[in-house]
Amino acid sequence: MTFRYELLRTDPSTGARRGTFHTPHGPVQTPGFMPVGTQGTVKGLTIDQVAGTGAEMILGNTYHLALRPGPETVRALGGLHAMFGWEGPILTDSGGFQIFSLKDINKITEHSVVFRSHIDGAIIDLTPERSIEIQEALGSDVAMVLDHVVALPAEPDEVQMAMERSIRWAERCLNAAGRSDQARFAIVQGGLDVPLRVQCARELSSMGFEGYAVGGLSVGEAPAEMYRITGATTPELPTDKPRYLMGVGRPVDLLESVMRGIDLFDCVMPTRNGRNGLAFTDLGPIKIRNAKHRHATEPLEPECPCLACTRHTRGYLRHLFIAGEMLGPILMSLHNLTYYQRLMQGAREAIEAGTLAEYVAEKKRGWGIS
Amino acid sequence: MTFRYELLRTDPSTGARRGTFHTPHGPVQTPGFMPVGTQGTVKGLTIDQVAGTGAEMILGNTYHLALRPGPETVRALGGLHAMFGWEGPILTDSGGFQIFSLKDINKITEHSVVFRSHIDGAIIDLTPERSIEIQEALGSDVAMVLDHVVALPAEPDEVQMAMERSIRWAERCLNAAGRSDQARFAIVQGGLDVPLRVQCARELSSMGFEGYAVGGLSVGEAPAEMYRITGATTPELPTDKPRYLMGVGRPVDLLESVMRGIDLFDCVMPTRNGRNGLAFTDLGPIKIRNAKHRHATEPLEPECPCLACTRHTRGYLRHLFIAGEMLGPILMSLHNLTYYQRLMQGAREAIEAGTLAEYVAEKKRGWGIS
Ligand SMILES: [Zn+2]
Ligand SMILES: [Zn+2]
Repeated sequence: MTFRYELLRTDPSTGARRGTFHTPHGPVQTPGFMPVGTQGTVKGLTIDQVAGTGAEMILGNTYHLALRPGPETVRALGGLHAMFGWEGPILTDSGGFQIFSLKDINKITEHSVVFRSHIDGAIIDLTPERSIEIQEALGSDVAMVLDHVVALPAEPDEVQMAMERSIRWAERCLNAAGRSDQARFAIVQGGLDVPLRVQCARELSSMGFEGYAVGGLSVGEAPAEMYRITGATTPELPTDKPRYLMGVGRPVDLLESVMRGIDLFDCVMPTRNGRNGLAFTDLGPIKIRNAKHRHATEPLEPECPCLACTRHTRGYLRHLFIAGEMLGPILMSLHNLTYYQRLMQGAREAIEAGTLAEYVAEKKRGWGIS
Repeated sequence: MTFRYELLRTDPSTGARRGTFHTPHGPVQTPGFMPVGTQGTVKGLTIDQVAGTGAEMILGNTYHLALRPGPETVRALGGLHAMFGWEGPILTDSGGFQIFSLKDINKITEHSVVFRSHIDGAIIDLTPERSIEIQEALGSDVAMVLDHVVALPAEPDEVQMAMERSIRWAERCLNAAGRSDQARFAIVQGGLDVPLRVQCARELSSMGFEGYAVGGLSVGEAPAEMYRITGATTPELPTDKPRYLMGVGRPVDLLESVMRGIDLFDCVMPTRNGRNGLAFTDLGPIKIRNAKHRHATEPLEPECPCLACTRHTRGYLRHLFIAGEMLGPILMSLHNLTYYQRLMQGAREAIEAGTLAEYVAEKKRGWGIS
């Protein structure tokens, strides 16, 4: 098989899994974190720097890439891998989430989502089939099905309707797909309603996707709700397929979700927060603009192997932000992505050693989270 | 001696010199180009990327660094080398040129230059002694003397007065200097008047600086005028000291000036133009935003070893600029700095081989300059 999830170990005291997801562009060790390359670039970093953080798989956003440069241009430039200059696996989302976040300009019917381009105002009619067509043109390793995401809180009827539609759309995506070198991942919806989530997970599981995502979370609900829904969903998914929690999240969210059986993550937090001057560390976040760092000669994090930590002081990083220099966001993004990769590497090692619960407890102590 | 210029070869058919400038932070092969790190960073690039372009010496701007983060903060962070994370030599300018470019808010007397900070409006009284004091706090390898730069064209009286004052200020800088691990470079002024330039060069040469700069050029005069003045000045300077043409310039200006005996250059063009979407190549500049590059799968320059050229297409670079992604300016700056370093490396090899005139003629043909 072109795509294969190899389950290496299941943690006896949690639902955590240690595995390898094999793709045509190489393996991904899981649990793993995918940096987000919204517009065909992980913001501010060269592709060598992204690889240097330890990332094995990256994510591109179909919505953005479809609008600019457009699927035909990506294809003309040799596909997403050639365009990015990235030889490892790439996952593309379906465009569903970005459309959800622009919901005031949308019309969603059973047929499609109609929306206006945020770039030139053009009307775009995105069907599940068109989403797959675009992702096949982009040439990612993994295509996500188009789903119907609802904002939370929502009426139960609306949540159920969107979940059922997401299943029908997932089937349409499967029927439309033609590339044998591209996997399709289905997306479980159902809001914060466990029975709906379970029903959705079971129906999608019977359809034979190469992977399964938990979607529609991290949209404003409390973290405990997100953990509860994730923990109720993963047991309904096939054990021989990877599980991806979309758009999540903070370091603690990653570890809590790993313990609930999630294998893959993506989130803009490490890069977006880095650009805004916030660094993740084992002792919690550091706001680098703070005046107390003015003369600070220590690195962001002593153990971190990233360039920001091995070559520069907090005082210098602060200077870069105060002076408005691009290098500040660059170095902080590099550090944060390195932090996320190290966090996942630590989780993988802990699962192998049978010490995940201790690992998570230790990290939470450092972050000041009980 | 801590600082030493080793003359390796003089080109018989031009005034070009091949040499090595030895500093406490290592040697610099000349002719050489220094990337500009105005605020303690070469804009958009990590210090590893700067080193990867082949740069051996970088420049920091005293005016900017004195205002932000301030010399005391630089000192607290271990000096400029530690702050930059750069182990090679660093040259700092005196603040004179930046003050010249803010001339409408200045008052220049024999004692000092008084100006307002562009950051917080504070009144700053910069004497030659204070300029050296700041540069000693910064800890650069080479400190430039404070000089009086006049805008061209200017009245002959004004040019002469400024040149004579620059000599007196150079002497005051020399008297104020205390660090044995920091070289002082004098700056020849005199506008476009050859006798004034010659007089200035001779007087400064008798004062025993560790290096000499040609200043007050590239301020609006025609390139031919710049070449004429440079060519008339260098023969008056000691042959056993490095010669630095400040703030110059385009690739052709570098080669024309190398043929007139210049050893060191600095300029913001490779980074500034790169950020604006212009790439330097052997076939002349490329405006990457141009629609003709949309589907272009070739690199900026086939022979270039930089990341932009080895991993990415023109079409991708164009996309990054159109999409407003930071990586566009980053990759173009990387390419342009690599281009400048390769140009200088080629010049050094041509001087060694006795083929500099052919090298320059070939480059000019490629650029479409007769
Ligand atoms: Zn780090
Ligand atoms: Zn290049």
